[in-house]
Amino acid sequence: MDFQSYFPIWDKLTPAQQERLKNAVIPFEGKKGIILHNGDIDCIGLLLIRSGQLRVFVLSDEGREITLYRLFDMDICLFSASCVMPDIQFNIVVEAEKDTQMWIIPPCLYKELMQESAAVANYSNQLISSRFSEVMWLMEQIMWKSFDKRLAGFLLEECALESSEVLKITHEKIANHMGTAREVVTRMLRYFQSEGMVKLTRGTIEITDSKKLEELNEA
Amino acid sequence: MDFQSYFPIWDKLTPAQQERLKNAVIPFEGKKGIILHNGDIDCIGLLLIRSGQLRVFVLSDEGREITLYRLFDMDICLFSASCVMPDIQFNIVVEAEKDTQMWIIPPCLYKELMQESAAVANYSNQLISSRFSEVMWLMEQIMWKSFDKRLAGFLLEECALESSEVLKITHEKIANHMGTAREVVTRMLRYFQSEGMVKLTRGTIEITDSKKLEELNEA
Repeated sequence: MDFQSYFPIWDKLTPAQQERLKNAVIPFEGKKGIILHNGDIDCIGLLLIRSGQLRVFVLSDEGREITLYRLFDMDICLFSASCVMPDIQFNIVVEAEKDTQMWIIPPCLYKELMQESAAVANYSNQLISSRFSEVMWLMEQIMWKSFDKRLAGFLLEECALESSEVLKITHEKIANHMGTAREVVTRMLRYFQSEGMVKLTRGTIEITDSKKLEELNEA
Repeated sequence: MDFQSYFPIWDKLTPAQQERLKNAVIPFEGKKGIILHNGDIDCIGLLLIRSGQLRVFVLSDEGREITLYRLFDMDICLFSASCVMPDIQFNIVVEAEKDTQMWIIPPCLYKELMQESAAVANYSNQLISSRFSEVMWLMEQIMWKSFDKRLAGFLLEECALESSEVLKITHEKIANHMGTAREVVTRMLRYFQSEGMVKLTRGTIEITDSKKLEELNEA
């Protein structure tokens, strides 16, 4: 499959716009762990994912992180081109969480398309609205859901993403995802272990009672 | 001043679009305290504020609130027309915090304009991006700023909004703004009082040392 079958509003572009876009996109492979976009110090462009997984997070002055959302196959990362949208006043970091094949859409070209095509502008709108909704969901979780429930939800989500009941992830990394301190994560995981929901070994967390974790998550 | 001088992209509309819009907008006065929009149970339309003040907040299942942002003269509330944007998957409540004069732009007409005009679509984009940025700011505050600093910031903001050092506001109401419990607010205000920053009487909070509050807010 090529770019045009991945780009959701390809059919809404004029032939001339299709031509300009096709000639401008750059295929790119981001190796696992690479930082693709970092706050306002770059404006790499939109990232259309062919396959792989990106993590989008914010970073505090003290170096604490919180994961906002993840992007998967056929998703588009818009905020790595935030220079085309002056009203985006926050800084995010985009990291390849797995080896990721993508196309980079140059920011200037995308800006031109947005200005001349209502379809492209409305599509951008849709993208921003979806991400906004994800962040609102996260904020409500943080505000109103206790940490044990959030952690249960996080572990279940990771299992689904990795298709495995055994997670290779450090407590430090979980803390970064959830915007908290490592000690808080370790303490809660030990509590989960004492309740028979997980089994902790060095560097891994094994889910031993996913049903109980689900009940906690949904409680 | 009339509608067209308040609507920011009036000049970017065609004469026919201007005509349709002018004939469709409805002048409206929302009295202080009225709920103008409530989650997904209505879709009143866009609200363009002529004068006054709106508060936009989210509500938890348990009835807790947190203020996302406020809107003032010439601001536009877009999410009261969230039915025109299916990717907005969260529910907000819009309340008139002061008597507010506004124009209501019907959602169907706005949707038509967005679809035919790149200028309107891009303007909507801009609006969503600004609100998104405000919510991101708030989330980072909640995640990374301790409650004493947030409360100091809130009191200073209220003073600026009311142009007064004496705030007539209950602890309950502050708790609703900040997504916390009344007791937490009361405890912190008593601490502020013991530090000479405020003076508490029944129903009012007087700022007695705004410099110290500012230092705390910026620390």
